[in-house]
Amino acid sequence: MNQVIEQIRDHKTIREFTDKKVEKDQLDLILDSLMRTASSTGLQRSSIIRVTDQAKKDAIANICKQDYVARAPELLIFVADLYRNQEIVKEKRGEVEFDSHVDKFFQAFTDSCLLAQNANNIVESLGMGAVFLGSILNDAREIIKILDLPKLTFPVLGLGFGYPNQEPQIKPRMKKELRVFENSYKILDSYSEAFKEYDEEMTEYYDLRDSNNRVDSFTDQVLEKETKSIPTRLELIEIAKENGIKL
Amino acid sequence: MNQVIEQIRDHKTIREFTDKKVEKDQLDLILDSLMRTASSTGLQRSSIIRVTDQAKKDAIANICKQDYVARAPELLIFVADLYRNQEIVKEKRGEVEFDSHVDKFFQAFTDSCLLAQNANNIVESLGMGAVFLGSILNDAREIIKILDLPKLTFPVLGLGFGYPNQEPQIKPRMKKELRVFENSYKILDSYSEAFKEYDEEMTEYYDLRDSNNRVDSFTDQVLEKETKSIPTRLELIEIAKENGIKL
Repeated sequence: MNQVIEQIRDHKTIREFTDKKVEKDQLDLILDSLMRTASSTGLQRSSIIRVTDQAKKDAIANICKQDYVARAPELLIFVADLYRNQEIVKEKRGEVEFDSHVDKFFQAFTDSCLLAQNANNIVESLGMGAVFLGSILNDAREIIKILDLPKLTFPVLGLGFGYPNQEPQIKPRMKKELRVFENSYKILDSYSEAFKEYDEEMTEYYDLRDSNNRVDSFTDQVLEKETKSIPTRLELIEIAKENGIKL
Repeated sequence: MNQVIEQIRDHKTIREFTDKKVEKDQLDLILDSLMRTASSTGLQRSSIIRVTDQAKKDAIANICKQDYVARAPELLIFVADLYRNQEIVKEKRGEVEFDSHVDKFFQAFTDSCLLAQNANNIVESLGMGAVFLGSILNDAREIIKILDLPKLTFPVLGLGFGYPNQEPQIKPRMKKELRVFENSYKILDSYSEAFKEYDEEMTEYYDLRDSNNRVDSFTDQVLEKETKSIPTRLELIEIAKENGIKL
């Protein structure tokens, strides 16, 4: 074991933070270190918007449908960014047709996710806690407006962080036998049988968001979450197209 | 500073490995720890195929157009996985229409990337090195066949790893001032001016893949890489659709 592994094994989402600010030198350390994250073919097709304006944080919290987003001391939005390289090409070549196709988009999306995971890890290593915010995609159009994102960019993931003001339990996860296969994808004979143990573990876990209430079994959560959808989240391809990406 | 941050700041891609195998207990530690990675709404919509069959590794190396992929002691392919939860829903509800829409796909894609970044970090913490393989998407259709990926899954990213047999220089990256903005995306007046210093840094870096040759400036790399494309990589949406995902 070492700090990297211990920390990954001890990962917990933190949604409530103390009033302690993240000092500028800490923030610089976080962001400078983060820039070392790998990216697809080294092109670093991702950008970060640090949201400090309270009105913008409130608007984003509203989109996320999570009050705590507005209260997070720091809020970063990771953005797939094909715009920057388009501008570099334009300046070098003059006005040319810049092809912003699905391949570049997937690469930029990937770059943004890798950044977000490392941001979480860096933040945790400094005694802070963080919450990933996939919920910014509840209304990607509005996020694009709020952050003045130019054409050829697309919001991917948010991360709120600060000093923890809660101590959640470690949430049970699937065992690797259910998710890691050798050479070929393994289809299980009975998912209900395979998930029995995990389902039991999950019902013994107390989620702080629903204090003192046990949570549903994993397979019941799947049933609930996989059978409802938020209409604006179904338009992600259209929204990316509206923002100039050719998908 | 701490191990997590030092390691992220010291990240280097490793493409050549010694003959030393990754022992089973190490591999178990890596994969067990990795399972603790966060996922979208906790649904863990990603799976990993560990490729040990040399014929499959050769075939994947061929798709990646990188010989070293076949020689990597360990090779993991991270897969966006909507199949598992479909099966869970089916067993609970009977044969129902399972909606595998873009929202779930983006979430599963994100889950897979977060796993890949943490896998890299865990591996590095154990004195090993790794290479991300976005190049598996050179032929996603073929990857799906090789790994027997069922409908509703999609390959996202690969990671080759083992004990390093090379010591690359640290590759220069953009400064945060070029990628991190406050409250609004910042469009620069002159990208050539803004990238001057980074361009110079890049030409002073020696890339091991092209031994003893200096590499192009960053903006020249952008010009070269952003203006060519691999046809099969432009079909990623179609391939995901062929594999049952409704985009």
